[in-house]
Parts: sequence; structure tokens; C-alpha cells
Amino acid sequence: MVERVLAADVGGTNIRVGIVDRDGRIRSRDEADTPSNGTPDEIADAVSSLALHLMQEHDAENELTSFGLAIPGIIDFSSNRISNSPNLPQLNGNAFAAIVAAKIGLNVFLENDATAAAIGEHYFGAAKNAANVICVTLGTGVGGGLIINGEAFSGADGTAGEVGHICVEPDGPPCGCGSRGCLEQFASATAIVRIANERLTSNSGSTLVRSSELSAKDIFNAAVAADSVAVSVFNTVGYYLGIAFADLVNVLNPEIIVVTGGASDAWRMFIGPAVAEMKKRAFQQPAERVKIVRGELGGDAGILGAAKRTFDHTVKGFS
Amino acid sequence: MVERVLAADVGGTNIRVGIVDRDGRIRSRDEADTPSNGTPDEIADAVSSLALHLMQEHDAENELTSFGLAIPGIIDFSSNRISNSPNLPQLNGNAFAAIVAAKIGLNVFLENDATAAAIGEHYFGAAKNAANVICVTLGTGVGGGLIINGEAFSGADGTAGEVGHICVEPDGPPCGCGSRGCLEQFASATAIVRIANERLTSNSGSTLVRSSELSAKDIFNAAVAADSVAVSVFNTVGYYLGIAFADLVNVLNPEIIVVTGGASDAWRMFIGPAVAEMKKRAFQQPAERVKIVRGELGGDAGILGAAKRTFDHTVKGFS
Repeated sequence: MVERVLAADVGGTNIRVGIVDRDGRIRSRDEADTPSNGTPDEIADAVSSLALHLMQEHDAENELTSFGLAIPGIIDFSSNRISNSPNLPQLNGNAFAAIVAAKIGLNVFLENDATAAAIGEHYFGAAKNAANVICVTLGTGVGGGLIINGEAFSGADGTAGEVGHICVEPDGPPCGCGSRGCLEQFASATAIVRIANERLTSNSGSTLVRSSELSAKDIFNAAVAADSVAVSVFNTVGYYLGIAFADLVNVLNPEIIVVTGGASDAWRMFIGPAVAEMKKRAFQQPAERVKIVRGELGGDAGILGAAKRTFDHTVKGFS
Repeated sequence: MVERVLAADVGGTNIRVGIVDRDGRIRSRDEADTPSNGTPDEIADAVSSLALHLMQEHDAENELTSFGLAIPGIIDFSSNRISNSPNLPQLNGNAFAAIVAAKIGLNVFLENDATAAAIGEHYFGAAKNAANVICVTLGTGVGGGLIINGEAFSGADGTAGEVGHICVEPDGPPCGCGSRGCLEQFASATAIVRIANERLTSNSGSTLVRSSELSAKDIFNAAVAADSVAVSVFNTVGYYLGIAFADLVNVLNPEIIVVTGGASDAWRMFIGPAVAEMKKRAFQQPAERVKIVRGELGGDAGILGAAKRTFDHTVKGFS
């Protein structure tokens, strides 16, 4: 049985690679910047060089046979291509798995990064033993992954799980996706900064100052210090998250919603209003049942999910 | 192999029973009023008398062994009880299957009515051969049923599929479920009448007159005759349906959305604006993929879905 695989989380800004064992421990790891303006071949080169170097360093070249990649885009599993990657659009339509495989000499498997995070949290993290899981990733944008009846669910074309694009305010701010008032416009790190800047006026009495330099972390710190504008921003985040949670609870009746991603670090400032709003709006029975928790794997959820997918694909060897 | 089963759709106002064969034909049928203020035992009596009479009439007493019931409520499959029925609340917590079984001497299986409609349309109607189906029922309220990976999906507690309670307008009208601005408040027959009455003023120039007697059918007929208020009502229905469709397309990436229920008779007045709004808001790839169609089974979807569930439960006999 294959005991270790190589896995990577290929993000818009960096690539992280690890050697992962069957029980979800990352035995060794390395990372590098993503050549985000590079050609597909340059991106594949960056991924495979990083991986080859890690394998050589750990004398794992003869053992490892498979490499799982968490990709920020939609995967067409029928052709093993990336069908659409908003953050790395040069990969649209690209047979990225085959290109990396040719460079590195391993079997390469792709998974959408948000689905990979859901798989990671489901097998190794906060959602172990739950059959129906929704993973919500609060980062620069808002992503999501679904586990249905114990299996990752990607829908008819691999695009399912876009919980960041549930409409929570029909006339709300325009969204990068082309719609308006998506959850992403209220609960991403980007949205936290936008909403704060909208509310920071000369007489708002905040310790924060309106600025394009403001970060979600600054606003979180101010909220922790009871800054009223910062607190109001996270109340708004929680309000809209609660509406989306209620939609998900009413439609999918999951055991657990796992909240992960960088902006989930502000958890204690938004989760109270989010759960209160969810309970106000969702049916009582599924609302009482659902657990809403933070992810346990942090930034490793994607890499671990890609590794799990890869273990599932590998067939038993002779050894 | 069992070739025919008995099935019933137990509604808040009437009970319909049929003998259904394996390919989804209703060979004979009968109906009666639901004793909606009666005790659970009286309701069970009404169901079983109707069924017994139908079996006797068609000399099917020796052949039929199983009876499927579509129920307007949430089914707890672990105990085979009705856990919550908003329209027949006396059945809450009731072991209705066992009570009917004792009266009629058949194996009795329960299914939620909206899920049953989804199963019916999936096996015998508009969604044959689709793996991922969302069935939206526009009636007095708005219900829904899900088929995921070819199987009915009811979630952790049997409550999944409540697409009528997706929030489409966070500060919208209060909903019977306790939330506000649910799809049901904009796309049910009840909502169509409410919205029309809100817009019918003395100088609205409509052929319709504000009245508690107004029906969704009256408004549909006026819309067909190009009455501007009536047309605007269905534009609103379509707008909000489109928002909910976009949510469902983004989160679940289904092959097909089947729209059924009495108010779906107004299909041609709302489907244009609904699809346009869905396409404006949903991701392009799943939006282009999804088919949005009318149900093909009309009011028989529930009874046929209950029958299909019952065939699935029955084991092969010796004959």
C-alpha cells in the first residue's frame, strides 16, 4: 500500500508542496512564489522543481509515485484539465496534470482547492466522521467545498460549492463574478476592508483611519479593542454569513459547517452574530443539529485534501 | 419481482391513492378529502380505507404487498416516523407508517412529498437520466427535493431541499418559517396574490381589482392579456426565482432544475425573467449547462415518487 504521496497547494501567490503520509501528517514541506504572470509551462516548472527538490532532499524519489495538486480553479475531471481558473487564467483549458507529470515522472491528480480543503477537514480535521459537510473558506474571496454522503461533491461540471456566490443582498455591491450582493462582497478579507472604509468618516469616532492600506487584520485588532466601527463591520460580516449559513442549512441539512481561510482568524468577532442570524432564519431542527466550527488544519487543509484524493487514486502496489 | 405497488399522496386538503406499476403508470386511482382536523388515527383510517377500497375494486388484495406514502412533512427514517408536518401538525412525532400498516396489512414506507416529487420526475418524468436534479414545487408554498449522484438526498435529519426558504431579500416580508424574504414569499401562489394586491391601487390601470378573493389564476389570466400590473407581478416572481436558481446553480451545479406544482401553470409568464436573472447572476459554465424545465408528471409526481421508493424497498419475491 502506498504510504506517502506528494501534494501541493498551488495558489495565486505561492505554491506549497509537502510529502504527506496516510494519516494526514505532512512529513516535510517547502514553498515558493507562484510565477503568476508566467506561462502554464513556467508554472508547471515552478511546481515540479519545488517537488523534485523536496523529494531529493528527503531521499523519496524511489518511493513516491503520485502527486496531488490543489488548484484555484474548476477541474474538468473527464479530461484532467483545468477548465477555468480566475486567479491563474493562463491555465484555462490547460492539461496541467499531464504537463507536470511529464516534468516530474509521477502520476498527477488535480482537485479544486476549496474542495480539497473540504476533503482535508473531512478526513483529517474538524469534520471527521461527518457525512455531510460544507467547508467555507474566507480569504481574499469566499470559496467553498461540499462533502455529501461522505464523498466530495463537485456537481455536473466540477463547479459546485461556490458558497461565496450565494446572493445575500440582491441589490448589493457588484461582485467579480458578474452578480451583485454575493456573500463574498460581505465576508471576504477584501469585503471587510471595503466595508470598514465605507464606514470610516471623519466623525466616526474610530481609532482606524480610512485608507487603501487598511488590512482585515487591522480591523480585527480594532474590533478586539472594542472600536465601534470595527465591531460594526464584523457584525455585518456575521449577519450576511448567517443568511448564507441559513440557506445552506435549509437546502442541504449538513451535520457541520467548517469555516476556514485567513479571514477566519477573526472568528470570535463574527461567529456570534453569524450563528444568531442563522438560527433566526433557518428551520429549527437542522439549525439545532448543525455544528459551525473553525477548521483545524489552517492553511494545510488544501494540501492534505489533495493528498487524500491522491491516496484514493493510487492502487495497491506489490510492496 | 414486485410488479405493482400501492402509493398515496397525503396532502393537507386531499388524499390521492393509486396502484402504480414498475414503469410509472398509475393503473387505477381514487381520492378523498383529508380529515385535516382529525386525529392521526382518523387520517390513517382515511388513507387505508381509500387504499383498501381501491385494492378490492381491482382485485389486487393478494398481489400488493407494499404501500408508499408521500407526506407533507419531514420523515425521520431511523424511526419511520413523521418528525414535523406544518400542514398536519397532529402527525408530528407520529409513527404513521406503523399505524397505516396495522390497518391495511401491507408494508408501509414514508417519503417527504417534495422529495417524492423529485424522485417521480427523476425516474418517470422530466429529469430522467440526470444525476443531479433539483425539483422546485410552486404551490401554496414553495417546496423542493434534491437528487444527488442519482439518489434522493434528504440531509442529516431528512430536512434538506427547502429551496422555498432560500433568502432572496433579507429585509423582505416575514415568512411562516420565522425568517424574512424567503423565496416562498415571492414565488408561491399565495405570494402572487399578495404582490398583486400590494400593487393594485385605484389608479394602477389594471383590469384586476384588489380583493382577498383574487387567485393566482386570475392574475395569470390578466398577465396573458397583457395587464401591466399582472405582468409586473410575474416579472417579480421570475426575478426572485432567478436569484434562487442562481444560488442553487452556484452551490450545486445540477444538470436540471424541474419546476412543478400548481403555480407552475403560470410558467410562460415567469420563466423568461427567471432564466434571465439566473444567467445574470450564476457562473457561466454551470448556468449554460443547467436545463430549467417544467415537470412532466403534474400532480402525479408525488404519488409516482412514493411508488418508486416503495419498489426500491421491496425485495425480490419467488415469482
